[in-house]
Amino acid sequence: MQVAITRADGERTTDLIAMEEPLEIRIGERPLAVTMRTPGDDFDLASGFVFTEGVVHSPSDIESIREWGSPNVVRIALREGVAIDWQRLQRHFYSTSSCGVCGKASIDALRVHASPVSSDARIEAAVALRLPELLRERQDIFAATGGLHAAGIFTVDGSLVRVREDVGRHNAVDKAIGSLWREGTQLDDKVLAVSGRAGFEIVQKAAVAGIPILAAVGAPSSLAVKLAQEFGLTLLGFVREGRFNVYAGEVS
Amino acid sequence: MQVAITRADGERTTDLIAMEEPLEIRIGERPLAVTMRTPGDDFDLASGFVFTEGVVHSPSDIESIREWGSPNVVRIALREGVAIDWQRLQRHFYSTSSCGVCGKASIDALRVHASPVSSDARIEAAVALRLPELLRERQDIFAATGGLHAAGIFTVDGSLVRVREDVGRHNAVDKAIGSLWREGTQLDDKVLAVSGRAGFEIVQKAAVAGIPILAAVGAPSSLAVKLAQEFGLTLLGFVREGRFNVYAGEVS
Repeated sequence: MQVAITRADGERTTDLIAMEEPLEIRIGERPLAVTMRTPGDDFDLASGFVFTEGVVHSPSDIESIREWGSPNVVRIALREGVAIDWQRLQRHFYSTSSCGVCGKASIDALRVHASPVSSDARIEAAVALRLPELLRERQDIFAATGGLHAAGIFTVDGSLVRVREDVGRHNAVDKAIGSLWREGTQLDDKVLAVSGRAGFEIVQKAAVAGIPILAAVGAPSSLAVKLAQEFGLTLLGFVREGRFNVYAGEVS
Repeated sequence: MQVAITRADGERTTDLIAMEEPLEIRIGERPLAVTMRTPGDDFDLASGFVFTEGVVHSPSDIESIREWGSPNVVRIALREGVAIDWQRLQRHFYSTSSCGVCGKASIDALRVHASPVSSDARIEAAVALRLPELLRERQDIFAATGGLHAAGIFTVDGSLVRVREDVGRHNAVDKAIGSLWREGTQLDDKVLAVSGRAGFEIVQKAAVAGIPILAAVGAPSSLAVKLAQEFGLTLLGFVREGRFNVYAGEVS
């Protein structure tokens, strides 16, 4: 979106800024969540959200996804017989999408919908080092705003399978994961690369989706490392400028 | 927190990473919100959260704040006779701290607890340009992790009044605002500077706190600009390397 701006030296010009608008995700008649996102790929976002937050477990549970009265509302209809534990969700989504009250409780809550990654997928160091550049190349004109996070899903040999962008890091991840999950693409042999940091939430989403390797351009948090170790994920941080750190698992 | 890592070249060493743990904020017996934060300054965080989210309007509404059974739980006791609209909060905090379903609805919802900024405070361009450096100087050893956002509150002539850091940008802002609000420090003549981007949520917090000027090192979003314009805030983005853009209001 173009807006009028004034620069520090007084020059009046225009600037391209990233769009941010709320998206309400409904399951049938009931609002499930509102997230501030960059419009676009909203069905991917809604699919990824319900999958990585443990609301829906298989793409075949979804009967239909459509816009509902506004471009900022997406309605997911579930297949007959698919039930949702609204009570658990109410606790789970309380204020943030974090799960509990202490790190341990969060991790315990997560066990409800994630199992340790069983994949033996490994990434070579040389491939990992290339991921940020491959991601950046595909950040399109949106990169012009400086205001979007990117999430890319790669094969272990570094081929980009899907990339999505959003003002919210977790939304970019949900869009990328949701897009492949809806198609039935295998995720347990893939690598998730993110343009920013890896916090608890991002590792949680990778774990629930069964993606065994997470590479972040930015820093990981303590809880992200703990969760990655506990769920058997390989977690790389500071993947940039020819370097990275392995915080959990190993590279080959 | 020190963790063992392996570098890209195979070297085994250690790295300092940012702490991230959930904090539950309770009002009396009732859980209000859980946020993933960096432990420390938790009373500031809880105070800032209830203030900028429109739950509590005056520091004198708070009888006491204390740890409650765990370092990850903070309990706020309200003064007798202070009432809370739990029903509005339940809608408000649904999944994220966003307010509504489209930009307009969000802004309407916000009117419940914020008024347009009436302050005529202005910042000089030369002062604005110095803010990121002044903020960075005070980011202490935590900067070593590369994993923390900073929020600083300055006078319009560039004196730092308070700085706080957190893995979550909104938490750093709540900590800085909460810290001053608890003390009764005037906010409507101050400047809020943040180390990252300015999204809807950050502008909303500044608006509710009555802080008239927001300077972000990173990019603003479309909704952040719209909200700043509507509430009469001065919004600067990309304040770095001797430059900035004015997206709303003006500098002197």
